[in-house]
Amino acid sequence: MVFFINMNVAIMSIGDELMNGFTIDTNSSWIAKKILEYQSLDVVSKITVKDDPVDIKNNLDDLIKSKVDYIFITGGLGPTHDDITKKVLSDYFNADLVLNSSYYSRLELFFKNKNIKKNSNLKSQAQMLENSTPIPNRYGTALGMKIKYKKTIIFVLPGVPKEVKGMFEEEISPSYLLSKFKKEKKYITLLTTGIYESKLFDILKHTINQNLNDFKVSFLPKYTGVNVRLSKKENNVCLNDFKDNIMDEIGEYVYGFDNEKMENIIAEKLFSNQLTIAIAESCTGGYISKKLTDIPGSSKYFKGSIVAYDNSIKKNLLDISDELLNKYGAVSSEVAIKMAENIRVKFNSDIGVSTTGISGPDGGSDDKPVGLIYIAIALKNETIVKNFNLIPHRKEHRNAASHTALNMVRLLIK
Amino acid sequence: MVFFINMNVAIMSIGDELMNGFTIDTNSSWIAKKILEYQSLDVVSKITVKDDPVDIKNNLDDLIKSKVDYIFITGGLGPTHDDITKKVLSDYFNADLVLNSSYYSRLELFFKNKNIKKNSNLKSQAQMLENSTPIPNRYGTALGMKIKYKKTIIFVLPGVPKEVKGMFEEEISPSYLLSKFKKEKKYITLLTTGIYESKLFDILKHTINQNLNDFKVSFLPKYTGVNVRLSKKENNVCLNDFKDNIMDEIGEYVYGFDNEKMENIIAEKLFSNQLTIAIAESCTGGYISKKLTDIPGSSKYFKGSIVAYDNSIKKNLLDISDELLNKYGAVSSEVAIKMAENIRVKFNSDIGVSTTGISGPDGGSDDKPVGLIYIAIALKNETIVKNFNLIPHRKEHRNAASHTALNMVRLLIK
Repeated sequence: MVFFINMNVAIMSIGDELMNGFTIDTNSSWIAKKILEYQSLDVVSKITVKDDPVDIKNNLDDLIKSKVDYIFITGGLGPTHDDITKKVLSDYFNADLVLNSSYYSRLELFFKNKNIKKNSNLKSQAQMLENSTPIPNRYGTALGMKIKYKKTIIFVLPGVPKEVKGMFEEEISPSYLLSKFKKEKKYITLLTTGIYESKLFDILKHTINQNLNDFKVSFLPKYTGVNVRLSKKENNVCLNDFKDNIMDEIGEYVYGFDNEKMENIIAEKLFSNQLTIAIAESCTGGYISKKLTDIPGSSKYFKGSIVAYDNSIKKNLLDISDELLNKYGAVSSEVAIKMAENIRVKFNSDIGVSTTGISGPDGGSDDKPVGLIYIAIALKNETIVKNFNLIPHRKEHRNAASHTALNMVRLLIK
Repeated sequence: MVFFINMNVAIMSIGDELMNGFTIDTNSSWIAKKILEYQSLDVVSKITVKDDPVDIKNNLDDLIKSKVDYIFITGGLGPTHDDITKKVLSDYFNADLVLNSSYYSRLELFFKNKNIKKNSNLKSQAQMLENSTPIPNRYGTALGMKIKYKKTIIFVLPGVPKEVKGMFEEEISPSYLLSKFKKEKKYITLLTTGIYESKLFDILKHTINQNLNDFKVSFLPKYTGVNVRLSKKENNVCLNDFKDNIMDEIGEYVYGFDNEKMENIIAEKLFSNQLTIAIAESCTGGYISKKLTDIPGSSKYFKGSIVAYDNSIKKNLLDISDELLNKYGAVSSEVAIKMAENIRVKFNSDIGVSTTGISGPDGGSDDKPVGLIYIAIALKNETIVKNFNLIPHRKEHRNAASHTALNMVRLLIK
């Protein structure tokens, strides 16, 4: 229970695509997370509603009657006949739709400059309720609105996630929320890897029990590790101090915080240490390279990789001898070591990484079951190799293996 | 509007993690899509509720009063103190919780066999309301329940997606739904690529208007192409015939249907034609290789790849001459062609694919802007190269580029 909350927020996502499950609603989660950043705001309701006038009106009516303070509505502002949100709100609030001419001029200019044929419904995109304040949309065409009705403030936004994010960050947050409410971190998530949930719990048990009245600690296991989320139960306690206590106990397993990604952390470390990296991937099949190159500017430290899926590629491109392959098998520490060392030399990089394992579903044996993987890291004067038995499901195995390889790099650079 | 629907379904997702946006609710979308497969079932409500007894009871009460026929509840059945769903339902229905001893024995045996220390709360996992029918869980520990109350049937499931899917497919669907309701395809999605939404609409305009009373056609643009979704408005019309009409008009742009993925389609084509493939990736940085190796059994056709991110790798590993790089630049049709041809020869594969482009955010120029990409496909006796100006945002560019490259392969094998 969080006791210092005093304003209630509801999120209503409109769209048949959301109701029938074809589109997963990411807007409501995104908005909820943003709301969480404010000390005095709490999301109390999240509903999905069809593109149906009666459903929209009834649900809106329920929310207004339940006296929530803020309602975020997303979806149904587009130019097609399915997009009925504005029309329905106009009926519900008994307010006419009027053209926002300055916004319309901006749209016209945009289409003219881009030399795109104007959609015949463009005018509808610039309409707003006469009792509303416009919320401009720099990421799409549909104009948003802020409506005050009785004691509730309603933000009406389009359904496209990029537009929702842009309008929230640039318009709603600074004008209507930031100015009124204090921002405060209520949660910190510690990202751990290489340790089981039960072990983490054992280490932290004492500290958790000592702070039971002030802080909540949640364990969220994932295939790549366990996220430990710390949150405040009381207003007058310091989350950062509690985090420091927790870090003293499990810091060695923590690779990052909150929304950080392993690949960003590696990128930062490689860049600041002016190190370059090259990868020889077998079972991960390009996944590690893909993760590293997801990061803008990765050409500064990532030289490239060889995906040696077929053994002929291990032989011809990575110079793994037939002898080694026959004696130990492709999935072995001996081959992993050679792959890492050879990719480092061939690509003239500071660090060479290799993976060789069995992601399944086929290829496992009693001796070397699905899930087994060898990961090697070669530096100039040393090579480290480790083996892991990761989750024996292909998709999760490949992801966990890539994550584990990057974590080994992280620990070495550290 | 779909007129032949007569049973209403509601989905309630319980959990603080869902409400505050840390976890995206995929269960409700998954269940909704499954419900859509039944002719007489329609999802009319999707709500998220906190781990709060009052909220859960109020929302359940509203749904029961609104006379929905089925309610799916997910979440809050786990062993921790946050998991309160069973307790709350016990209060609401005024029904005691009783131990399902046969299910409990199964859990005990499982933990004994796996040699895992039994959780002290294991008994709670095997409890059920006295007025309920058990729904066994083969994918986790929490027992599910089916409760009949007044005219509503309520399915209570855990929150872990794997468990929800397993229990729905193996227990709920065969016992409670399939036996009662006819399955029928109400939707078909045509996956297109390489054509704009407006162009597709122009081609299909006439057919759409002619069938306006019987079928709905929705256009869902994505960065990798436009999905065209066909759905029935009337019970007595044939969706397949309509699909055939639409395919006659836009079939050349359709690469697959419904949930198919481009990489699966390529995998199938390569495998059935006994062709092998190798990739030389620059800007896509391993993404194409990752996609191809996502598919189980990909070692049958995928030999490997070189991610030549740094120009030194293009030179040393792919034998692209300094002359070519200096004269045309790394992002050019000349370099793309050589990369595709050389990877094919080096990896001794039937098909060689290459990408070289500018994913951004940096590296663009007036001449070669962010978004530009050259993709080449080399076969034994011919090489094809094309350039595209794809969306100039790194993440989407890399995904669209990989998709486009695979589509070029698809068209060539066809």
